[in-house]
Amino acid sequence: MKTKFINAPENVTRELLEGYVLCYPDKVKLAGENIVVRAHAKDESKVAIVTLGGSGHEPALSGFVGEGMLDCSVVGDIFAAPGAQRLFQALQLMKREAGILLVVLNHSGDVMSANMACELAGRAGIKVKQLMTHDDISAGIGAAKEDRRGLAGCVPLYKILGAASEAGKSLDELIEIGTRFNENIATLAVATGKCTHPQNNAVISELPLGIMEIGMGQHGEGGGGQSPLVSADDTAIQMVDMLCQQLKPEPGSQLLLIINGTGATTQMEHNIVFRKAYKELVSRGMDIAFSRIQEILTVQEQAGFQMIMAILDGDHVEYLTRKKADAPYWTTIEQ
Amino acid sequence: MKTKFINAPENVTRELLEGYVLCYPDKVKLAGENIVVRAHAKDESKVAIVTLGGSGHEPALSGFVGEGMLDCSVVGDIFAAPGAQRLFQALQLMKREAGILLVVLNHSGDVMSANMACELAGRAGIKVKQLMTHDDISAGIGAAKEDRRGLAGCVPLYKILGAASEAGKSLDELIEIGTRFNENIATLAVATGKCTHPQNNAVISELPLGIMEIGMGQHGEGGGGQSPLVSADDTAIQMVDMLCQQLKPEPGSQLLLIINGTGATTQMEHNIVFRKAYKELVSRGMDIAFSRIQEILTVQEQAGFQMIMAILDGDHVEYLTRKKADAPYWTTIEQ
Repeated sequence: MKTKFINAPENVTRELLEGYVLCYPDKVKLAGENIVVRAHAKDESKVAIVTLGGSGHEPALSGFVGEGMLDCSVVGDIFAAPGAQRLFQALQLMKREAGILLVVLNHSGDVMSANMACELAGRAGIKVKQLMTHDDISAGIGAAKEDRRGLAGCVPLYKILGAASEAGKSLDELIEIGTRFNENIATLAVATGKCTHPQNNAVISELPLGIMEIGMGQHGEGGGGQSPLVSADDTAIQMVDMLCQQLKPEPGSQLLLIINGTGATTQMEHNIVFRKAYKELVSRGMDIAFSRIQEILTVQEQAGFQMIMAILDGDHVEYLTRKKADAPYWTTIEQ
Repeated sequence: MKTKFINAPENVTRELLEGYVLCYPDKVKLAGENIVVRAHAKDESKVAIVTLGGSGHEPALSGFVGEGMLDCSVVGDIFAAPGAQRLFQALQLMKREAGILLVVLNHSGDVMSANMACELAGRAGIKVKQLMTHDDISAGIGAAKEDRRGLAGCVPLYKILGAASEAGKSLDELIEIGTRFNENIATLAVATGKCTHPQNNAVISELPLGIMEIGMGQHGEGGGGQSPLVSADDTAIQMVDMLCQQLKPEPGSQLLLIINGTGATTQMEHNIVFRKAYKELVSRGMDIAFSRIQEILTVQEQAGFQMIMAILDGDHVEYLTRKKADAPYWTTIEQ
């Protein structure tokens, strides 16, 4: 029985990308099978920002290809890393003296493909460096980086790196800017309800009605255990507490606060959760320098959201808020 | 039992609007209870664009308040029209010699509030004219305007009117531009699954797994009858056919094509439906001059989407694609 608006399951990824680039022809195009690039390429004197990841998380990751953000997104099948050969093909397309910065979300398949493709690229004389994201804190406060998955915190990172690259920063400078951001960002997910894999209808996650799970990963991976759904305000405070334990912001800290919807939860609810998180942080003396409520990285129809917090330096604020971005799902007008 | 991230049900609307304006303080603010206005008001020499409608459809309608779009959104409780007194209060705030254009989606409560508020405004010497939207075609091809509800087609209309107002068009000119757009737009919804009212948990709509209903309204109102879910491509063709029967585009027509997600259906699916709709229209000789895939007007967690099509004149294309908009959920960089 059909439960989703798809055609043949094996064509889902190809067709969703085709629809995407047809919708935004002034901004994005396909440069190969499952390789999305800008419709108008950035000057080759500037570092290319490239990322990779499975599909099924739309608008992520390819929704952020565009001026001032990503130059290229290499897409795998639903929830699956793209192969190293496809990624290597993309690195060849992006080759330039200024170099390529490859942003890798910490998931084993993506890491393996990235390492293999970078090895091939090195042999082919392509200058590429990796920057790994690991913003998920569900493995525990202060857990080792390797044990922390990359969640939707990659998206504001793309914005910062894209703007810094447009401003002419070198590959090493971009690594420094991005690393400084990555060391001060934390994301926590909460899930409710159920979601299914579009290709085989397998249940990815299933939570009984009225139950939430804080810390669930982007593919139904276990989190911090299930508990009855509490109010929006109590949920917000609980998540803010955990994020602050990790980041240790101080009064006067300039914070980023994003609510990323993962699927079926309404924006109405995100707004209400955001309201309390914002007020709680302000009552602790922090400033919210950048905020957004949006489905930036979804997990099929998974109800729930990710709360993303970061302590920003002045250059991060500048790149996030004042520099132009013109990707289909992230547009910032130059101030 | 809690199933949504809210606090006291009676506070949902106030709290979601408070969260919204806290998130985007550079763009929007509250100017009264449930009245959202631009953070930086438009020059009073230009016509104000105002709209009204119930909450529960986020990001609509208030998500489109901002430079180049709406000046003011007057919000009712979940799925309920705001009262005439609140709307009158907003009209007083927006009063100017150039006048106010009030965009009203054709739903009985909204129409009644708009008529009463405009009568009060007239007595108070406030210059205001109404523009009604009725893009839904589920009442049947060629049905009388009065019988056709206003669906998400109001959103591109806000963009066109906002840009035309910024360009200095008079109230009568805006009525002409908007009427010409309204006469050439058609929207069709398809729903699957179930959604509930956040304040009383009442089931707004419930469709068995594997069943879709084409033509369902924005609050679970009956549509064209239920049928088994078919493929994305077949769904797209069926909807394109009906929209074309209504609009009768000709080869060479410049079309708008938007897929508006109403809640739980993934953007992955919207992309795949868009792909076929786009190809089908191009194969019939039409040009797609403007397109977008986004949740612009939701119906809580209702799975499904609305397909919006319009035949555009040259000025509509210009206002939609080349003129600046800077609302939280619709940003266009000036070309």
